[in-house]
Amino acid sequence: MSIKNAFYAQSGGVTAVINASACGVIETARKHSDKIGTVYAGRNGIIGALTEELIDTSQESEEDISALKHTPSGGFGSCRFKLKSLEENRREYERLIKVFKAHNIGYFFYNGGGDSADTCYKVSQLSEKMGYPVQAIHVPKTVDNDLPITDNCPGFGSVAKYIAVSTLEASFDVRSMAATSTKIFVIEVMGRHAGWIAAAGALVEDYDIPVLTLFPEIAFDKEKFLIKVDAKVKEHGFCTICVSEGAHYPDGSFLAEQGTRDSFGHAQLGGAAPVVANMIKDALGYKYHWAVADYLQRSARHLASESDVLQAYALGEAAVEKALEGKNSIMPTVVRESSSPYRWSIGEAPLSEVANVEKMMPVDFISEDGFGITEKCKEYLYPLIKGEAYPPYDDNGMPAYVTMKNMTVEKKLDTFEL
Amino acid sequence: MSIKNAFYAQSGGVTAVINASACGVIETARKHSDKIGTVYAGRNGIIGALTEELIDTSQESEEDISALKHTPSGGFGSCRFKLKSLEENRREYERLIKVFKAHNIGYFFYNGGGDSADTCYKVSQLSEKMGYPVQAIHVPKTVDNDLPITDNCPGFGSVAKYIAVSTLEASFDVRSMAATSTKIFVIEVMGRHAGWIAAAGALVEDYDIPVLTLFPEIAFDKEKFLIKVDAKVKEHGFCTICVSEGAHYPDGSFLAEQGTRDSFGHAQLGGAAPVVANMIKDALGYKYHWAVADYLQRSARHLASESDVLQAYALGEAAVEKALEGKNSIMPTVVRESSSPYRWSIGEAPLSEVANVEKMMPVDFISEDGFGITEKCKEYLYPLIKGEAYPPYDDNGMPAYVTMKNMTVEKKLDTFEL
Repeated sequence: MSIKNAFYAQSGGVTAVINASACGVIETARKHSDKIGTVYAGRNGIIGALTEELIDTSQESEEDISALKHTPSGGFGSCRFKLKSLEENRREYERLIKVFKAHNIGYFFYNGGGDSADTCYKVSQLSEKMGYPVQAIHVPKTVDNDLPITDNCPGFGSVAKYIAVSTLEASFDVRSMAATSTKIFVIEVMGRHAGWIAAAGALVEDYDIPVLTLFPEIAFDKEKFLIKVDAKVKEHGFCTICVSEGAHYPDGSFLAEQGTRDSFGHAQLGGAAPVVANMIKDALGYKYHWAVADYLQRSARHLASESDVLQAYALGEAAVEKALEGKNSIMPTVVRESSSPYRWSIGEAPLSEVANVEKMMPVDFISEDGFGITEKCKEYLYPLIKGEAYPPYDDNGMPAYVTMKNMTVEKKLDTFEL
Repeated sequence: MSIKNAFYAQSGGVTAVINASACGVIETARKHSDKIGTVYAGRNGIIGALTEELIDTSQESEEDISALKHTPSGGFGSCRFKLKSLEENRREYERLIKVFKAHNIGYFFYNGGGDSADTCYKVSQLSEKMGYPVQAIHVPKTVDNDLPITDNCPGFGSVAKYIAVSTLEASFDVRSMAATSTKIFVIEVMGRHAGWIAAAGALVEDYDIPVLTLFPEIAFDKEKFLIKVDAKVKEHGFCTICVSEGAHYPDGSFLAEQGTRDSFGHAQLGGAAPVVANMIKDALGYKYHWAVADYLQRSARHLASESDVLQAYALGEAAVEKALEGKNSIMPTVVRESSSPYRWSIGEAPLSEVANVEKMMPVDFISEDGFGITEKCKEYLYPLIKGEAYPPYDDNGMPAYVTMKNMTVEKKLDTFEL
């Protein structure tokens, strides 16, 4: 039997460093060309496997693959496409195996969050049953930082750094104007279910910024919040608020959905930030500004955390090395050895324990009043935003990000309807 | 007569590099301690002069003053406070002169935009008439880039770099998800009257990003815009839109004001970005994301343009040097010697020609269809975003920004009611 090829796919929302993991996978596979043949990448993620649109990464130059390490987004395309359960749609899983078989693919590297860990797990189980064993390794990625077992998820550290730094900068700005102008600055951050990213905004407290954070973990108490805001402004002259997009009222309704209607009566026009800003203005009369970072935060490779970039690469590298050791149905993880000084190593977790498990913020990471973070949380966060890993810039002053050629190989199978 | 002291104040909205100009003023004055005494800074800008709250910058260490060069915001505080005309409120101008006289201040360095250039001009005129001559020098600063004569204004280059890079990064993100998810990304940028900052977003066109820009200079044509958006999505699979906060309909009403109402019926809740995003969704059905950068853009010292930082410092330095040459009622300017390679020098403009003149984007900087920029505009913009001037970071992974002691000297005059 000839040496097997590998398949790599990016899944779900992309990050500033998911391409660093891709780089780790491809560069490491290239180093072992005696054991791994071509690395195919799914065009637009797993959909590319189903539709047999396999990008031949061997057509990409060494320089371009290396440049993935400093390029945000998904270089081969990603998608939001969750395979249904085996019972509901066995056909999709069987198609995957069929495509892998047709292209002599023996390694499946799936780079994503909880859903893709689940898919990865099922592929490894089913492939065995179908008599075409595939080694399925999951490479963790998610800005939401909600995968279990691993200390953190690549993508999160860079978003956290961006939000911490941006919140600090905007707060400095407001501080210098507050005497006669804006007193309230509201920044809205990602995280519908978990407040990890919002927690990063709360770090500015250590830099003398009065800040209140609204987590999705804590039901919003408007009265208590407004009292806190007023106290901060009265003491410091201004107040910064970091609100998670998932902040919600006790009844579960999102702040972002409250009372915003466009001229057609459609809801959800605004984000949580303008709602919070207006609420403060109405109750306390303070002048405000607000920002919604949205995709700027998860794509901000220009301010990536060095820890994050190194770990993203190392996890891609480890995925290939573990595959070559014969491992299957696992996810390489980040193991924290020490917070100060920060030391980490690569471990592994069985996919059976990763799939469908969501890691929430520990209760003892949120301060007692519910509007801030604890020392324990800070000790966890700082190492993840440590160090700067700047991309190179071109002569224009723009970052030198790479765009892949993304040439697909010839199809061998019939068309597959998604 | 003993050597004269100097007064320095920051005016209006702060920037990522206004403190670099402060650093240039103070460091250069310190080098000439045989000719210039203490540099006093106005606490919260010109208000600090009126209320006699004069910060003694000699109390700040060499290291802290040097750190201003890489610290965003206004280190001594700024304000939005426009002195009325001489006819309307001669009292304020006379108070300024009185405070200057009381503290032996012979140099007035005012760091701001159009309004402060005007104030600076009047102070120099009035002080002469009142028999206490003050050399008034204006140091240009404004993210809006709307001061005349100078090639550009410190603060603008860094915002432009931030917007160009952020728009590129978010567009890469959307590009990699567009096949199955978000197809429209809208970023809202500052610039109520002039489209300079929006123009920076349009630069991503050179990096293969389909982008449409909405300038305040061009009345918004909804129908034409939607046709353009649809064509971009059909050709490229996605489209980025960079909308200026000042974008408006032919009747002058801002897009940001259209149809957004909170539960109390208050307008102006949302920004222009969500309005544009929803408009596209309603007409074309494309899934969108939007971001409002707000203060993140003008405080983003972490991504400052090197050209901008160097010029901000050089203009502060030149202000002091020109004062020592006996100059009065002028503003040092940036003179562009060449765009490629980029070469610039410091010139000067009489304040009489600067005050109350607003520089708009030249018509030939906007493309014929009104949704983009011309090669001429790009040739102008790229040098201004050239080079990176990163701040130092601490062990936590946070930028090492400085906070001044801001100790004021004893008051010598009666209280002044603002």
